[in-house]
Amino acid sequence: MHIMVTGGSGFLGQQCIAHLLKMSGLALEPAPAQPIEAITAFDVMPGAILDPRVRYCCGDIADPHQVSALFRDNTAAVIHLAAVVSGTAEADFDLGLRVNLDGTRNLLQACRARRQLQGSASPMRLLFASSIAVFGGSLPEVVTDHTTPTPQGSYGIQKYIGEQLVQDYTRKGFVDGRSVRIPTVVVRPGKPNGAASGFASNIIREPLAGRAAVLPVDPDTAMWVASPRAVVRMLIRALEIDAQQWGWHRAINLPGLTVTMREELAAMREAVGERALALVEERTDPAVVRLVRTWAARFDTARACAMGLEADRDFAEILRAYMEDHPEALALQGP
Amino acid sequence: MHIMVTGGSGFLGQQCIAHLLKMSGLALEPAPAQPIEAITAFDVMPGAILDPRVRYCCGDIADPHQVSALFRDNTAAVIHLAAVVSGTAEADFDLGLRVNLDGTRNLLQACRARRQLQGSASPMRLLFASSIAVFGGSLPEVVTDHTTPTPQGSYGIQKYIGEQLVQDYTRKGFVDGRSVRIPTVVVRPGKPNGAASGFASNIIREPLAGRAAVLPVDPDTAMWVASPRAVVRMLIRALEIDAQQWGWHRAINLPGLTVTMREELAAMREAVGERALALVEERTDPAVVRLVRTWAARFDTARACAMGLEADRDFAEILRAYMEDHPEALALQGP
Repeated sequence: MHIMVTGGSGFLGQQCIAHLLKMSGLALEPAPAQPIEAITAFDVMPGAILDPRVRYCCGDIADPHQVSALFRDNTAAVIHLAAVVSGTAEADFDLGLRVNLDGTRNLLQACRARRQLQGSASPMRLLFASSIAVFGGSLPEVVTDHTTPTPQGSYGIQKYIGEQLVQDYTRKGFVDGRSVRIPTVVVRPGKPNGAASGFASNIIREPLAGRAAVLPVDPDTAMWVASPRAVVRMLIRALEIDAQQWGWHRAINLPGLTVTMREELAAMREAVGERALALVEERTDPAVVRLVRTWAARFDTARACAMGLEADRDFAEILRAYMEDHPEALALQGP
Repeated sequence: MHIMVTGGSGFLGQQCIAHLLKMSGLALEPAPAQPIEAITAFDVMPGAILDPRVRYCCGDIADPHQVSALFRDNTAAVIHLAAVVSGTAEADFDLGLRVNLDGTRNLLQACRARRQLQGSASPMRLLFASSIAVFGGSLPEVVTDHTTPTPQGSYGIQKYIGEQLVQDYTRKGFVDGRSVRIPTVVVRPGKPNGAASGFASNIIREPLAGRAAVLPVDPDTAMWVASPRAVVRMLIRALEIDAQQWGWHRAINLPGLTVTMREELAAMREAVGERALALVEERTDPAVVRLVRTWAARFDTARACAMGLEADRDFAEILRAYMEDHPEALALQGP
């Protein structure tokens, strides 16, 4: 089978591709696992993973023709990660709509048209990376599967609209779509991206590399987080699970951990000692504080848990995984 | 001031225009009332109301250039009623997306661009006609301002996406938008339209005109309804009310009445006698029954009520208003 990953050169896209390449096969249940013969990574630039099975296609997801041209006769599933992230979508409203709304709609239409042309009765399986940014504002202490999304920013609005489209395309039988609301991913390696939540990774990644970092919010600020490993595992499972188990409603909150920035820093001190903390400067940024205050930090993810999706055990596990996966980025070692 | 009404030739559009023409002025609060010098009715065909102040423009709301060309230097408000209704949006998915999603987005962009070109700091005021069809499926006994919309059809999905766009364009200061979820409007005059809820009007309008009608659902089926008079009154008020009173969240459920089809028929018997009932045939249509079962019939509209929006007192009042407004459509008179 051929798998398409949009945003395939981005951080999560590369992690997904690495994971897919290691799997002996992908099981689009109830069908048995099938070997993955080819992966197309669609993005604005090529990614780092080089493998004979992976082909990078660079283009514009808002162009319907480019998106349609990506499909092959044996395309079995689409993992749709391409997005303009929160900070960028807020700064450039039109770009956000173009990529996050038009891009998602193009992809759904392309899946539908492909299957129609193939005369296939079974819709294309599609995983849509939504975000907990669909929640915001006055929220209950714990967000559940029944909490009404009230996005406070353009990114959250656009992701929520994407969910609605996935829902209706699925109901009509045009795709077999699944939307998962991804927690804040920590620890992100590499350079900071445009996400407003980036500091939750920065305050770990930068000190571990021997560089200074800024904590722009109160240390007791709590966030709903998951490691890249856990997120990728959950994404692939969410794609594999039988449509019956998903049922009618096609959006879920992914499991995660509630962690405060103070707890993150404590875990880092535990792992590499006091000197890492000296590299973190607390310098409040009112704009970030205002934004973060509207985010949901506690979830009851009963529905996802019932599907067997599992997050990390604790932040120490997240930190350990980061240090194992990125030895090249560590200037500080054990205490 | 100049007012634009999309869907201005449709039933609600014409009612709105008639109402606006009778008003001495429109008060976009906190500004005082200003006389309405001109109304542009944009639709696919001209309407029946002829008045020197009303100009019909026929075109395609999915064409950005046509929509932008409708604005004038003194355009002060937009009433956005243009839509592909529920039955049609379900039967023609692409047409629904084109009119209900692209059309709404075009209009929002046009409002934004217009104000930007004018160098105006005050965003264009816009009323978006959403629908209680955003609710469906497993609902609480009473839908409140906090109930999560879970639309079950393409029409509801598209209206809900429109609300999200109105919300974000408003938050960004690009428009001053307000979305109102309109109850099922009864009694609709004229011919049945593509709305799946049409029977609630048909079983009154047709017998009153001496024609047969079909009741495709159980007589005890309850619906959330409002008269054309009440809806138009609420729409105009919702447009006039100060932005401060709307606050952050820009979508509300409009007040209405919970009425069963049996109660509708009883009110008709009361008004014109037994023979009207003989014209109503109960013939269950499983497709309609299935659809209606997913609709919300009871609401607590606290937020709209606090804004001073008011529905009809009872169905007898709705019926009386219809008979007053449409003497030409009455074959049966008092008992």
